[in-house]
Amino acid sequence: MTSAEPPIHRRAKDYRWEGVALEPYKEDDRALFKSVTRQVLFADPQQGTELRYFEVAPGGFSSLERHAHTHNVLILRGHGVCLVGREVREIATHDLIAVPAMTWHQFRATGEAPLGFLCMVNAARDKPQLPTQEELAEFQQDSRIADFLNGTR
Amino acid sequence: MTSAEPPIHRRAKDYRWEGVALEPYKEDDRALFKSVTRQVLFADPQQGTELRYFEVAPGGFSSLERHAHTHNVLILRGHGVCLVGREVREIATHDLIAVPAMTWHQFRATGEAPLGFLCMVNAARDKPQLPTQEELAEFQQDSRIADFLNGTR
Repeated sequence: MTSAEPPIHRRAKDYRWEGVALEPYKEDDRALFKSVTRQVLFADPQQGTELRYFEVAPGGFSSLERHAHTHNVLILRGHGVCLVGREVREIATHDLIAVPAMTWHQFRATGEAPLGFLCMVNAARDKPQLPTQEELAEFQQDSRIADFLNGTR
Repeated sequence: MTSAEPPIHRRAKDYRWEGVALEPYKEDDRALFKSVTRQVLFADPQQGTELRYFEVAPGGFSSLERHAHTHNVLILRGHGVCLVGREVREIATHDLIAVPAMTWHQFRATGEAPLGFLCMVNAARDKPQLPTQEELAEFQQDSRIADFLNGTR
């Protein structure tokens, strides 16, 4: 589904939606990530905002990145932990996470079940930036962030 | 929450969110509706799109209306039935409903549990139009739509 008008009604079953492709998380192979899939649920040209569903398998994580566009996230299933800026937060089903512009962020699935979340984003948006080695080293100075990044919390 | 930046993380409990007001469905008393509440989850100025959560109690219904702006809906809990244009559809948890511009629509909760849904909408939008008596009479000519509107299906 891109700019074509979607059907009025698309049924859901087990976190898959009728007529919605199950896509790789991202094509960008510069970024480190693990076990994430993507489904674009709405891409309405009038709204200029997309709604995507990402699912992170147990032990998986999204890429650590920042960008000028914002993310507005609602957890749809499971639980996990996220980094937003320098904040590390436990997140659970239906929690809301707002990622401001130019703020480092990453999501990790913890526990036995997938972490699935909805993410609203501008259709027209800038390319994510990845941390430099220097920025990663700086993060490792903060034990709470280091534990998050190393998956050891 | 209006244009101020929301907290990074707001926890959910039983379909209520931290720091989010439980509001009446709408202030417009021209419209017929029953047992609906509203919570604005995201209103991000950069995106220009809002995410609202509506909850319709058993037997309740949203107003029958149309407008130039679109709605993109994901059912978060329960099940029900909706009218979009001249289509009447059974809807269940996680189903997607796209309401095109200038298309009549209404949601009804069926069964014992509330029908809760997320709705994406442009922050800047036109005021809903309500059906005239003539339009309502025309709908009643179609038995499937009449059963929906009368709550007798």
